[in-house]
Amino acid sequence: MKLWQKNTASLKEVEQFTVGKDREFDLLLAPFDVQGSAAHATMLATVGLLTKEEADTLVQALRRIYTRIEAGEFTIDEHMEDVHSQVEYLLTQELGDTGKKIHSARSRNDQVLVDIKLFMRTEIEKTVHSIQAFFELLVQKSEQFKQHLLPGYTHLQLAMPSSFGLWFGAYAESLADDTITLKAAYDIVNKNPLGAAAGYGSSFPINRTLTTELLGFAGLNQNVVYAMMGRGKAERVVATALANVAETLAKLSMDACLFLNQNFGFVSFPAELTTGSSIMPHKKNPDVFELIRAHCNRIKALPNEIAMMTTNLPSGYHRDLQLLKEHLFPAFDTLRDCINMAALMLSNMTVQADILQDEKYKYLFSVEEVNKLVLAGVPFRDAYKQVGLAIEAGAFTYDTTVQHTHEGSIGNLRNDAITASMEQVVRSFNFEQYHTAIDRLLGKKA
Amino acid sequence: MKLWQKNTASLKEVEQFTVGKDREFDLLLAPFDVQGSAAHATMLATVGLLTKEEADTLVQALRRIYTRIEAGEFTIDEHMEDVHSQVEYLLTQELGDTGKKIHSARSRNDQVLVDIKLFMRTEIEKTVHSIQAFFELLVQKSEQFKQHLLPGYTHLQLAMPSSFGLWFGAYAESLADDTITLKAAYDIVNKNPLGAAAGYGSSFPINRTLTTELLGFAGLNQNVVYAMMGRGKAERVVATALANVAETLAKLSMDACLFLNQNFGFVSFPAELTTGSSIMPHKKNPDVFELIRAHCNRIKALPNEIAMMTTNLPSGYHRDLQLLKEHLFPAFDTLRDCINMAALMLSNMTVQADILQDEKYKYLFSVEEVNKLVLAGVPFRDAYKQVGLAIEAGAFTYDTTVQHTHEGSIGNLRNDAITASMEQVVRSFNFEQYHTAIDRLLGKKA
Amino acid sequence: MKLWQKNTASLKEVEQFTVGKDREFDLLLAPFDVQGSAAHATMLATVGLLTKEEADTLVQALRRIYTRIEAGEFTIDEHMEDVHSQVEYLLTQELGDTGKKIHSARSRNDQVLVDIKLFMRTEIEKTVHSIQAFFELLVQKSEQFKQHLLPGYTHLQLAMPSSFGLWFGAYAESLADDTITLKAAYDIVNKNPLGAAAGYGSSFPINRTLTTELLGFAGLNQNVVYAMMGRGKAERVVATALANVAETLAKLSMDACLFLNQNFGFVSFPAELTTGSSIMPHKKNPDVFELIRAHCNRIKALPNEIAMMTTNLPSGYHRDLQLLKEHLFPAFDTLRDCINMAALMLSNMTVQADILQDEKYKYLFSVEEVNKLVLAGVPFRDAYKQVGLAIEAGAFTYDTTVQHTHEGSIGNLRNDAITASMEQVVRSFNFEQYHTAIDRLLGKKA
Amino acid sequence: MKLWQKNTASLKEVEQFTVGKDREFDLLLAPFDVQGSAAHATMLATVGLLTKEEADTLVQALRRIYTRIEAGEFTIDEHMEDVHSQVEYLLTQELGDTGKKIHSARSRNDQVLVDIKLFMRTEIEKTVHSIQAFFELLVQKSEQFKQHLLPGYTHLQLAMPSSFGLWFGAYAESLADDTITLKAAYDIVNKNPLGAAAGYGSSFPINRTLTTELLGFAGLNQNVVYAMMGRGKAERVVATALANVAETLAKLSMDACLFLNQNFGFVSFPAELTTGSSIMPHKKNPDVFELIRAHCNRIKALPNEIAMMTTNLPSGYHRDLQLLKEHLFPAFDTLRDCINMAALMLSNMTVQADILQDEKYKYLFSVEEVNKLVLAGVPFRDAYKQVGLAIEAGAFTYDTTVQHTHEGSIGNLRNDAITASMEQVVRSFNFEQYHTAIDRLLGKKA
Repeated sequence: MKLWQKNTASLKEVEQFTVGKDREFDLLLAPFDVQGSAAHATMLATVGLLTKEEADTLVQALRRIYTRIEAGEFTIDEHMEDVHSQVEYLLTQELGDTGKKIHSARSRNDQVLVDIKLFMRTEIEKTVHSIQAFFELLVQKSEQFKQHLLPGYTHLQLAMPSSFGLWFGAYAESLADDTITLKAAYDIVNKNPLGAAAGYGSSFPINRTLTTELLGFAGLNQNVVYAMMGRGKAERVVATALANVAETLAKLSMDACLFLNQNFGFVSFPAELTTGSSIMPHKKNPDVFELIRAHCNRIKALPNEIAMMTTNLPSGYHRDLQLLKEHLFPAFDTLRDCINMAALMLSNMTVQADILQDEKYKYLFSVEEVNKLVLAGVPFRDAYKQVGLAIEAGAFTYDTTVQHTHEGSIGNLRNDAITASMEQVVRSFNFEQYHTAIDRLLGKKA
Repeated sequence: MKLWQKNTASLKEVEQFTVGKDREFDLLLAPFDVQGSAAHATMLATVGLLTKEEADTLVQALRRIYTRIEAGEFTIDEHMEDVHSQVEYLLTQELGDTGKKIHSARSRNDQVLVDIKLFMRTEIEKTVHSIQAFFELLVQKSEQFKQHLLPGYTHLQLAMPSSFGLWFGAYAESLADDTITLKAAYDIVNKNPLGAAAGYGSSFPINRTLTTELLGFAGLNQNVVYAMMGRGKAERVVATALANVAETLAKLSMDACLFLNQNFGFVSFPAELTTGSSIMPHKKNPDVFELIRAHCNRIKALPNEIAMMTTNLPSGYHRDLQLLKEHLFPAFDTLRDCINMAALMLSNMTVQADILQDEKYKYLFSVEEVNKLVLAGVPFRDAYKQVGLAIEAGAFTYDTTVQHTHEGSIGNLRNDAITASMEQVVRSFNFEQYHTAIDRLLGKKA
Repeated sequence: MKLWQKNTASLKEVEQFTVGKDREFDLLLAPFDVQGSAAHATMLATVGLLTKEEADTLVQALRRIYTRIEAGEFTIDEHMEDVHSQVEYLLTQELGDTGKKIHSARSRNDQVLVDIKLFMRTEIEKTVHSIQAFFELLVQKSEQFKQHLLPGYTHLQLAMPSSFGLWFGAYAESLADDTITLKAAYDIVNKNPLGAAAGYGSSFPINRTLTTELLGFAGLNQNVVYAMMGRGKAERVVATALANVAETLAKLSMDACLFLNQNFGFVSFPAELTTGSSIMPHKKNPDVFELIRAHCNRIKALPNEIAMMTTNLPSGYHRDLQLLKEHLFPAFDTLRDCINMAALMLSNMTVQADILQDEKYKYLFSVEEVNKLVLAGVPFRDAYKQVGLAIEAGAFTYDTTVQHTHEGSIGNLRNDAITASMEQVVRSFNFEQYHTAIDRLLGKKA
Repeated sequence: MKLWQKNTASLKEVEQFTVGKDREFDLLLAPFDVQGSAAHATMLATVGLLTKEEADTLVQALRRIYTRIEAGEFTIDEHMEDVHSQVEYLLTQELGDTGKKIHSARSRNDQVLVDIKLFMRTEIEKTVHSIQAFFELLVQKSEQFKQHLLPGYTHLQLAMPSSFGLWFGAYAESLADDTITLKAAYDIVNKNPLGAAAGYGSSFPINRTLTTELLGFAGLNQNVVYAMMGRGKAERVVATALANVAETLAKLSMDACLFLNQNFGFVSFPAELTTGSSIMPHKKNPDVFELIRAHCNRIKALPNEIAMMTTNLPSGYHRDLQLLKEHLFPAFDTLRDCINMAALMLSNMTVQADILQDEKYKYLFSVEEVNKLVLAGVPFRDAYKQVGLAIEAGAFTYDTTVQHTHEGSIGNLRNDAITASMEQVVRSFNFEQYHTAIDRLLGKKA
């Protein structure tokens, strides 16, 4: 007998299907649901929808729930649909009618929306800190290995001399640019949607400016219809920024896998950071880098997934948006794990010395020879031909001294300037602003 | 006989395959190739790779080429591989050995890279101006129709009262946020890669700081290996920002198509802005909005396409990157066309009056009735039940006056605050900086 | 202190990162690992790598493990890396040296590969059965509601009369075509990779034709390098076929959400199959259809995700491929859940009668009026103009009788022909072939 | 002044925007529009909507247009919207009222739909022929180089011996599987949508079975609502099949680029098939393979693009579907170009001999040494340890003879079986069926 012939079963099946994995992902939202509720209750008292005493009682109860969440003692009961119901249930159980009043002038829609934004704000901050630590490692390694030359490839063909100094530094600078896109995402996330209710506002005379301040947001999603459009959009924009960081890590991992390949043989890792094979006793595989690459490439597909799930939905809330959590929320942790694992690997990487002394790399120096002729007055196009003919005739001579001095080249890495850019971007987030507000809201500090 | 059995044909086929559509897309790069070359020549004279006279001669010749480009008189000859060869050919034909010297200390790779960045910088500026004009129209329409109520839907089900004031304003605010991501893309684009040569720098003592100033860039791509990584990355980041704007337009178009649908019937358009059917004489179809939606959804797929084409390529230049132009470059024009067409449609849109007076929309007012009870002291959850029971019993009564006053609601649209945000973002681009530099480089102004 | 500074922690972290969620997803592979191992052991005895007694002992032990798996009593221990280690551990524990011998002439790589293919083969079969049951419901509903007319839209504008008979039948036929792509995926999956070892075959004189027969595969992945390429490819091709089914369900859900919207009002559902709102007491939302749509749109993004994760990986195994399981494996269940929920909803859907009697739908009949003129001898283009002018003049007259008789039209739905196509495709899978083989291998039947 | 303020300009702008690139892509549809029209006219005469004489006159005129198309003399006039208008215009100009009658009982929608399906059917056939020719080259090269050993890599680490015989053969077999998905796409494409009119059928008593036969389709899209759903779906399914072939080519190209890299140095190409550098005189770059890879990766993104553009569109025609042509139609030619260029490159590729004699590849033979111990009676897990310890102690000895004999291994490539699979798939298309019908329709053969 098919499911749809069993009438008695249908309610249960429908509930299970619609609740889905909400309880699992909602646990991540719990602290933010409490923050949003505390701000909302505080505001309600200022516009006469709660008494000052009711608001105080609610905020105190919410702070106690917050403490339990921080202690890992908060759970969502089986019979509760989501975190919001759980919190409201606890309040009502403890405070009776006062608990019931907290949902005045808000909807589940703006409640979830503010929770998600608060959650992503925190996750972005944690991600920025991980990136910054990794950035510093890359800069340190760039300086440490600035004398270690490396073949530079174009078209995967030997091209010109490069160095590990350049290689590490390039990925550091890449992260600095990636962080710019994370800042843009942060700016879009760090605006207050609370008060949009179901997406069309409320006839209550609420004060959205006040909740904006209480929650430490940099500003308001002004228009309530736009505030609701932020669902899906905020997720997509954040996923895109994560994807940019992921692309940097994935490319670094691809390089590392190539460099470790025995035909290249530029680097090596201690045995405990590589893995073996079930049939080939000699194998030391770079599984960590391969998994970083795979995780990061999956994150790179995430913005497209979110776009696919929200494309051509008219304005207004749709339940589809609920599912965006499932792949986005874990992506923050995954990306930070990847950053940490990449850092672990690079910290323990041994770099081969004197790679370019091998004669097989001699043509890397052909441009140097062309340039010498140019400096001696030969027009570039003629110098190029002359060296080309020498190579074809097997008469190419060269020396392996590299004298690059301009900005950003082997002899002038500019890691200080790159570090300055990174620091400037990180400062511009101004995370302190929200910490101060949230601490005050939760009664944590003066 | 198969292609690969005809030896004599192969060179021609290979050339045709590798050149592809380069000539077509390179025409767009012509003015920027001249800008980059003028800066490069000027710099070469300061480091002794050209004499002052040679540099002056080159810059003058380049300015003449620029004038021809602006006049639409510049073409790429059939036997020229690309725009860079064409420009160099013109210089060499006119100036002999001096022309040959301009390629000293640069590579085709950094030359293309700087051209693309200069091109995208200009295209972003044009796009920002289009967005801003459309933004202003939306704000104006929001004010014009702020009294026109509209059903607000959630789950595509009737929810609460909304208004055309909210609807227009929401899309204006959405564009303001989208422009933040365009600014991040601009910041990544507006850095100088010139001097990276083939991606590993040069042994010439070039001055990259000088070309940065001459071209009006906000800064340098410091590390030369990172500068080359910018190829592909800059395109992806820009495509992502375009995709954000595109998503806003696509959603607006979906709404418009629904609103025009006869079951909704909220808006109408003059016959000359709709199209007919080959068999149904009554049809007035919103083809313009459908095509905006389709173009924009295609643009939304572009970042993924670029990611797919660059995924797992190790660092260093690959010829694959050449193909990124083909879908990205036209996307700028397409997006601006879509913006302009959306503006044309909305400018001529008639909005239905008194929509909510129809009794079928009565339940939109159920929350208002709940709220009245709450304001009268009934706890929210109890008021909710009471109205719900009245609805089920067919005893629901309501009035259609809407009294929303809080920030961003029907009665308080906050279009001024939204406009202020938009203006702030637009100002932050500081386009003047590069205009001043380029004008000076091309001898256009003092 | 950072992770990468703690030397003692690194092994554990690396292990945790590389094992990832393998244990969770490997449980799904357990029965198939046993099947593959039983076939492999049987074959080894025929080529002298095991004695007949050793093989028999192994197969008996494997059958016992299979029984435990079926009973839900099989688990993967914490200290085991994956299901393959667990099974081999159980065999070795029970049989000593004989257990150790089972891994002769195979690698973890082809072992996983054959497990995945056996798993996907079974999942495809289950999916085909779900599709077929849903197909039958759609055909039944199509017949049930064939007299119920519905507006047909083009450009979301009223176009011509349609019917619920057509609407249900269209989705049935869509599933029949989707199943063709599932059959192509099945044909690619249902080939034996076992014996490819690490992707380069083995010097043992193994008999791959025999394992092909024992496992009931329709054929061999002949070339061992290609067999290994099947990892990633099989997943992508299967995901694509799931995506086709998902697209059909997503479109059906979009239609259902529109039809339920009050402006359309074509259908309704019992209250227990819809959900309410936390603030709007009148809401009956189609969350089930919205979630089907969202799940299905996510599945539609899956082929792209797999492509992104495997793009530009050279031939040969990479650890990246391990992660493909995590989103693909649950997609089978999700898709079947969506099918079942759609069936539940449609089984309980009430269809509005006499929709087209409402005068607002009168222009749906304009083509009918044109056609009458044509049948009376007026050239089509002239008849079209005549009716168009009548409409503009407000003089359009019509009757609502619909007399469509041709193949596939309102009066001639052709559900029998559609059913015949579906049955033909389903038969072509020939699932019996593998059931017979597997039952014999596991000693389940004669 | 903005576009949308110029009333007089708007019609022209709207027309330009809506027509877009239709004229360009419609030229490709011209022969198929004629085929569809000839079948439609012939059928109309059998149901009394045309006289036999009118139909004959129309078919003769259409055959003349077809001759002009084949001669390259057919163009779409500037003032014509599309190919359909152009053909109808030519008929009306020549035949007067008879020309006007051809549009009876069809709509632009089913007319375009049948054109696209006929076009894709032909393009699939051309693609299959290209694939088959390339397949044969790969098999021939596999046999030619079956003695040439190659390192086999897993995790990009040296693993076990492989061969060029395996390498070429693997890609041949991959194409055989890809062709299975192309066949599924063909089966979905090769069904007749004509008669669906605007997607809701017609009140004329048309005979769709007859047009199905006249056009050589394998069957009908029965349900007219489903027939219209085929727009977008057929394109997506075909794009997916092209993407599968593209993935095979892209991976082959990635391998080729690696093999040509000097650190590998396994293959080389004549200078005229590689390209140079503007600054490095020694460069011989594999641009052809890089461009194949890039084109193919772009094709791999196409199914996602189509999905994005059609996601969440309710059933019924939408103008969005018009844009699907622009990236899909050229993809057929691009893919065939890529196949041809890959064939040209591989035909001229020189393979390095005796690669594995280099001592750096010695560990490739570690499994062989393990296997020898196993064959001598040592349990696999113990043999594995023994060789592993020898490697760690620097005491590993080996010989480079490879004795793989099982199905699909170095010594037993099974190219005959692979060829047989390919031939079976190609035969199953049964292209003759449609050629016979179309030739008869166009009066080309008995």
